[in-house]
Amino acid sequence: MMKQAGKVYLIGAGPGDIELLTLKAARVLQEADVILMDNLVNREILSYARPDATVIEVGKRGGKPSSSQEAINNQLVTLALEGKCVARIKGGDPFVFGRGGEEVGALTEAGIEVTVIPGITSGIAVPGILRIPLTHRYLSQSVVFATGSSREGGMQPNWRAIAESGSTIVLYMALTHFEEIARQLMAHGVSPECPCAAVQDGTLARQSTMLVPLVDMVSLVTAGRMKSPTIFVIGEVVAQSPLWNESEPQVTLDSNSDRNGRESGRKPALPGAAAARTGKETAHR
Amino acid sequence: MMKQAGKVYLIGAGPGDIELLTLKAARVLQEADVILMDNLVNREILSYARPDATVIEVGKRGGKPSSSQEAINNQLVTLALEGKCVARIKGGDPFVFGRGGEEVGALTEAGIEVTVIPGITSGIAVPGILRIPLTHRYLSQSVVFATGSSREGGMQPNWRAIAESGSTIVLYMALTHFEEIARQLMAHGVSPECPCAAVQDGTLARQSTMLVPLVDMVSLVTAGRMKSPTIFVIGEVVAQSPLWNESEPQVTLDSNSDRNGRESGRKPALPGAAAARTGKETAHR
Repeated sequence: MMKQAGKVYLIGAGPGDIELLTLKAARVLQEADVILMDNLVNREILSYARPDATVIEVGKRGGKPSSSQEAINNQLVTLALEGKCVARIKGGDPFVFGRGGEEVGALTEAGIEVTVIPGITSGIAVPGILRIPLTHRYLSQSVVFATGSSREGGMQPNWRAIAESGSTIVLYMALTHFEEIARQLMAHGVSPECPCAAVQDGTLARQSTMLVPLVDMVSLVTAGRMKSPTIFVIGEVVAQSPLWNESEPQVTLDSNSDRNGRESGRKPALPGAAAARTGKETAHR
Repeated sequence: MMKQAGKVYLIGAGPGDIELLTLKAARVLQEADVILMDNLVNREILSYARPDATVIEVGKRGGKPSSSQEAINNQLVTLALEGKCVARIKGGDPFVFGRGGEEVGALTEAGIEVTVIPGITSGIAVPGILRIPLTHRYLSQSVVFATGSSREGGMQPNWRAIAESGSTIVLYMALTHFEEIARQLMAHGVSPECPCAAVQDGTLARQSTMLVPLVDMVSLVTAGRMKSPTIFVIGEVVAQSPLWNESEPQVTLDSNSDRNGRESGRKPALPGAAAARTGKETAHR
């Protein structure tokens, strides 16, 4: 006898800080028999799951071949056809560079019910924590999210048009090709002095941040000063952050600092280790 | 004797569905002495506030003069200087067309601590509910969020460059100028047959949705078929939604339907009232 087909929740876990999970994600996780989760997802999320839920790690690590997407699709379909309630957890939002569309497509084709629970994408969370408004009545009426890590020979964002649009630019997975992307943006009208922020491990306690003009960011990235995962924000709005006017452009913030009052709008914490790591030579704005 | 200055939490309430609030927003709301909230915010959020918290409505309604932004800034500063813990609640995310940057600027200038709690913006939540992937490896490597409601004579999004970028396009507050915006997009390379979704009251029980080619969307909007607040999504990715292939392109979804199992990946609920309202004459894809 065939079991009744299960269902799949495609859940955005948010950018890292477990408290940026939605109430809905926390609720539906309790229904899940099986949880498939990506690498970058904060493991604390499992505290919302049932103790008897099966947890399967399926995440692709950067650099490894992405051949596993089809395997993940098949695994989701198989589990749901076995009658399981499956929670598929992705970092950020499932539909912003998350390949959620491919998983929804495979599930829908197999006749399986799939519900998407949106999550806070890093490109919105990180500017929030840094107090960089992505849009501003007088500075930017649009914002573009683009990936810097397109497939070789595949589709690329149109950097010329993105530069010409005057939008605030948020880059995901752009460390490897940052120099080339920045060169193209500058060739098409973005000023080398345009304010730029880079945030590694955004919203986590180990988050580290740099705010410098675009041309200097290129030097820092080329020198290997940021590691994955890093989000870049490029635009005049970056200078709206209270952090932009700090004498030391590199700062490290504890995203949880609102819990214990260490963060201030005027004097963001500058842990000694971070100051030592970032050094003085880049404090040249 | 001066009181110790208070603090301000600038909180994104998410798109409407109360369950798309973050755990962090729910937690810090309990700290607030005073809550300033915008019109579009779901009032259920107050269930997370202290019963003795003072609630102040400050939202601007569409169409009314926006002169109140400075008044809101001043009110926030005054309350914080009185020593209050203030929760400033905005729909969606505070930094995506939310004027959060102006409030952070005023508070920072006054020396007041302000912490931003990001929220899920409608432009991400609505495609999620409709299962429209904003990005897709083979269809779109970037997504742009733009406002259709810029100040008269003020800054406008560069519709030409946005069209040329090949990005998925998400429009906020674009009902009034939709015809003109669509005309500009089509003049610069977006196909009249490009799949387009419009979602009114996204994520709420009363949500209504249309999925039709761009040129037909212009007719529907011109005929007054959508009311504010409406989000538009334009791009090939819209056709990835399982809803695009429904015989009836206009559907109404209950965003809470995952609670009672009425929603299915293959057969989204089509309440009779909605089908009657949307009619047959637009089912012409």
